[in-house]
Amino acid sequence: MPERSKLYFTVAETLRRARNIALCGHVMPDGDCLGSVLALGRALKIMGKEVLMLSPDPVPEMYAFLPGASEITVTGNGYKAVDVFVSVDCSVPDRLGCHHSFLERAGRVIVLDHHAGATVFGHIYLNEPGYAAAGEMVYELLRLLPVSLDPEMAACLYVAIITDTGSFRYDNTGPQTHIRVAELIKLGIDAARINKLLYEEKSLVSMKVLGRVLQSLRISDCGRVAWMSVRQDTLRELNARNEHVDGVINYPRAIKGVELALFYREIEANKYKVSLRSKYFLDVNKLAAQFGGGGHQRAAGCIMEGDLAEIQRRMLEAALTALKDEHT
Amino acid sequence: MPERSKLYFTVAETLRRARNIALCGHVMPDGDCLGSVLALGRALKIMGKEVLMLSPDPVPEMYAFLPGASEITVTGNGYKAVDVFVSVDCSVPDRLGCHHSFLERAGRVIVLDHHAGATVFGHIYLNEPGYAAAGEMVYELLRLLPVSLDPEMAACLYVAIITDTGSFRYDNTGPQTHIRVAELIKLGIDAARINKLLYEEKSLVSMKVLGRVLQSLRISDCGRVAWMSVRQDTLRELNARNEHVDGVINYPRAIKGVELALFYREIEANKYKVSLRSKYFLDVNKLAAQFGGGGHQRAAGCIMEGDLAEIQRRMLEAALTALKDEHT
Repeated sequence: MPERSKLYFTVAETLRRARNIALCGHVMPDGDCLGSVLALGRALKIMGKEVLMLSPDPVPEMYAFLPGASEITVTGNGYKAVDVFVSVDCSVPDRLGCHHSFLERAGRVIVLDHHAGATVFGHIYLNEPGYAAAGEMVYELLRLLPVSLDPEMAACLYVAIITDTGSFRYDNTGPQTHIRVAELIKLGIDAARINKLLYEEKSLVSMKVLGRVLQSLRISDCGRVAWMSVRQDTLRELNARNEHVDGVINYPRAIKGVELALFYREIEANKYKVSLRSKYFLDVNKLAAQFGGGGHQRAAGCIMEGDLAEIQRRMLEAALTALKDEHT
Repeated sequence: MPERSKLYFTVAETLRRARNIALCGHVMPDGDCLGSVLALGRALKIMGKEVLMLSPDPVPEMYAFLPGASEITVTGNGYKAVDVFVSVDCSVPDRLGCHHSFLERAGRVIVLDHHAGATVFGHIYLNEPGYAAAGEMVYELLRLLPVSLDPEMAACLYVAIITDTGSFRYDNTGPQTHIRVAELIKLGIDAARINKLLYEEKSLVSMKVLGRVLQSLRISDCGRVAWMSVRQDTLRELNARNEHVDGVINYPRAIKGVELALFYREIEANKYKVSLRSKYFLDVNKLAAQFGGGGHQRAAGCIMEGDLAEIQRRMLEAALTALKDEHT
């Protein structure tokens, strides 16, 4: 049996023996950490455990429909210590936020995570960089626990997987991802309804912001770079918060021929947060680094100061040079 | 063996015996009929058959990347007759468009379709209303042919399935859909790249149209009905054709609390094509019928004449009544 598979048994055994268990996802929780915490938490409750489901930040409204979501607490309910603490979808201790302090107060610390290049910590460290979602790890773990997967757990794991794979569009989606989802659907979830609840219940404000921001869409003469921007007064006028602007950068990136998309969001007078996204090949981490920023190969950001038109001119020049370099 | 499974063997045997074979999808071809025709066509060519791949309408640009897409012909290449004609993803003879006439000139006619309530025609009629895509039928059929599925066929079938399931979001997506896709991915396709080619290569014009149309977004006081509109002069100004407006109705429908989305597109002075979409329960087919239109429960359309504001007032009144009726 491979070393990693043995770890699942060790995790299962540790959970079986525990009396009270805390489960915690990362700061700025997403569908994967919430769905994973809720599915595992439900299973452990059914097994008779005392379960504390934690999140360092509140559950975003779009995930409020997840079975059990209201049981997730940000405060920790005054708990002082637990037998077992499970860090779910998180292997950077700082990303546990305010619940970081549990690490010293738990009998055993288990880490269940799928991020590559993560920090090793805790007593049992289980990392699956080949998995698209932590929800896939929880699915495998649940099969080793003396509890039957029910439709509620399946719905939570389904959300974990579709949110972390961009509905199976990202390159982390493997054959096993689809096979596990097939099993979840067999358990009787209403996948179409879940998708509507997730992707067709957007705020009116975000839709208005999208319309307004698209008015600023520009594209370079060569057609490889597209950008948009938004001023603070526009966001104020529309009563928009930062969350309402999330994801608008996907629109310029989705234009035919565009390799690099840029979005300039004014954060104070003459100061802009610039988001960079590439489609197939450009290393935007390197491009952002030229302006003191950073990130990943396909998604990065930086802060730029000055007049918007001047900032955009400087960035475009650097971008066109980077695009040229990639082809020589 | 169930009757339907036997039919797959009959189809496979008929194709094995044929010398020349025409494959044809429906008018206004989509990813499912094109991907299905191309995957089956490629397999039959490898088997040494003379294969004619037909489409009544040209292949839309977004599908031009499909392996073999350039071999699909609209004209029929002067063919007079074939041993076998296969109607793919189409069981309404009229929807074969100009290639309809092949039906009388083929030795055998095979129908492979998954639409419910379709017309029975041809010598071998194979219908799988439980399948999300015709591509799933072709996948099953290819397993019975003396040819190995290769990555090119897999890519075509992958596109067939993701386009007809809305990336696995529609309620036609069953466990078997995911299991078949897992097998396709195992054959070595680059699913992430295919998704980018399909969904992140949109025209600049369509993005500008979206931005402009979103400016017209309005929502009823109760928050259940949202609508947008576009005038002919706006489309002319943006150099937009009808295809550039496709899909914009998904935006008002995706607003939180909205059950009914409406889109008014001016087709001539004071004449509007109205598209209706509902999210969870409203029967828009019935609503559209009040104005001489029709369609399906969640997607319908009608034509309305008059002043835009007046048309919108009449429709909203009918819509609010329909929404009220659904809840009493």
